[in-house]
Amino acid sequence: MITPFKYAVLALFLAGGTALAASKSPADILQGAPAGDWRAVDPDNTLLMEVGGHGVVIELAPQFAPRHVANIRTLAHEHFFDGLAVVRVQDNFVVQWGDPNAEDTAKARSLGGASGKLPAEFSIPAKNLPIAKLPDPDGWAPVTGFVDGFPVAEDPARNQAWITHCYGVVGAGRDNPIDSSTGAELYAIIGQAPRMLDLNITVVGRVLVGMQYLAALPRGTAAMGMYDKPEQMAPITTARLLADLPPEDRPKLQVLRTDSKTWKALVEARRNPPDAFHVHKANFTNICSLTVPVREGGKP
Amino acid sequence: MITPFKYAVLALFLAGGTALAASKSPADILQGAPAGDWRAVDPDNTLLMEVGGHGVVIELAPQFAPRHVANIRTLAHEHFFDGLAVVRVQDNFVVQWGDPNAEDTAKARSLGGASGKLPAEFSIPAKNLPIAKLPDPDGWAPVTGFVDGFPVAEDPARNQAWITHCYGVVGAGRDNPIDSSTGAELYAIIGQAPRMLDLNITVVGRVLVGMQYLAALPRGTAAMGMYDKPEQMAPITTARLLADLPPEDRPKLQVLRTDSKTWKALVEARRNPPDAFHVHKANFTNICSLTVPVREGGKP
Repeated sequence: MITPFKYAVLALFLAGGTALAASKSPADILQGAPAGDWRAVDPDNTLLMEVGGHGVVIELAPQFAPRHVANIRTLAHEHFFDGLAVVRVQDNFVVQWGDPNAEDTAKARSLGGASGKLPAEFSIPAKNLPIAKLPDPDGWAPVTGFVDGFPVAEDPARNQAWITHCYGVVGAGRDNPIDSSTGAELYAIIGQAPRMLDLNITVVGRVLVGMQYLAALPRGTAAMGMYDKPEQMAPITTARLLADLPPEDRPKLQVLRTDSKTWKALVEARRNPPDAFHVHKANFTNICSLTVPVREGGKP
Repeated sequence: MITPFKYAVLALFLAGGTALAASKSPADILQGAPAGDWRAVDPDNTLLMEVGGHGVVIELAPQFAPRHVANIRTLAHEHFFDGLAVVRVQDNFVVQWGDPNAEDTAKARSLGGASGKLPAEFSIPAKNLPIAKLPDPDGWAPVTGFVDGFPVAEDPARNQAWITHCYGVVGAGRDNPIDSSTGAELYAIIGQAPRMLDLNITVVGRVLVGMQYLAALPRGTAAMGMYDKPEQMAPITTARLLADLPPEDRPKLQVLRTDSKTWKALVEARRNPPDAFHVHKANFTNICSLTVPVREGGKP
């Protein structure tokens, strides 16, 4: 197998914080992080979705898509997603779930108290946004970095900031009209970051826990990865805001603060891995090559 | 759902050539490609691997890793991989198969007529390499483009060229010593391109067919995505060079020539999608955001 050392380092980043004996600098960095470098997730803006028997936790991004997130919170509160399913898995692209008829008013499921019409929320003003900038150029955008754990790009000249389509990022499906998404149908990225979707679709959050289940769902065999038959679809049993769950049923998740020195050190360890395996150190990284650590119950 | 139009375009790229009625420019570009813009795969350097009942086709890259590819060809010829399995699936990183004890001489499976010791083949001379350059900067490398369908980066100042770790690229696992890989254990990339592996490991080829099965294998739950139990492992029934199969059993695969005008037009359509969905055109793309079309039996 490939060197256990290197893999431990990568596993740490990719799994978001499983400390392993053989790992070196990134694990040490995380172990040494003060408690204040971690933040709890907000129960009002975190969704626990049971998909095919697995728990998937999605952190919503009200700062970036206030109207869509408010709608999704209403939908979850009213149990809109219960009984729906994953309807599409396209390899190296997206897993998609919710109401497949969301944009067809004749067939769409009732949105209850949620709104059926929302403005596009593709970007927010970049000015004064507290972004922890990455030192390396991105290509797709003039500036990249992290805002409260979310991967973000900025175009200062246009005063625009937006969440980038990295692995695990969740967006609201839309049709050609830019205001045709409601959050009733959502997708998560399961492959190479499709950055051409940036500024073209409303991003509503990111998966904190459970990508390993979503990304391993069987690919749909119909056009665009759609499932042919209902029995192929992983069912969504429930989708609840943590705030709507009894406190004892809420996952106790913490996210590493991306405005912390710990995160800065982790980024640098990724740019120049401090190990014997990497004989070539790239001295470079990219916004979608980084994963912000998440831990449960105060343990990495 | 997200607009069928946009998805058709993406599906075309990501699935590598399924023409769809709703698709526009990229599909039209491919439809209009002259026969000479496609090339057949070389039966001597293409591997058909049966994994968990699914066919996976890997195109080897002798130009980039002659010694490793020769070794893999010998191993396949001697049925080395038959009865081995997928031993590891780490989410957003790699699926790995072959002999998990490849680097432990006490436990390793006999390599038969293949070599147990090979030099590292991390790069080749860049000078005079016929690369179809991309117009956009990469960040990880000064130059990127395609050589005969393979995603390649170049550093002209160092006269180095190498296959980049994009989705579906296949490499030879190694331990810390750079000359510790033989091809007896291989991995394929199943997530965001781990470009920090570039120039650190010998890349031997890329998956032409079957990524949708490899990437959907259950993630291993032990450290680094290793499987805990043998029964979790998808078995490799056979792995054969196409040249070792009767002609009638060989998949009739063709790869779009990346030195063709058709490919150049497809790249441009990716940089600036000619559709109504993309209200923001990035005017940019990246080496790992492109997938070279593959077709079977002369049909996209």
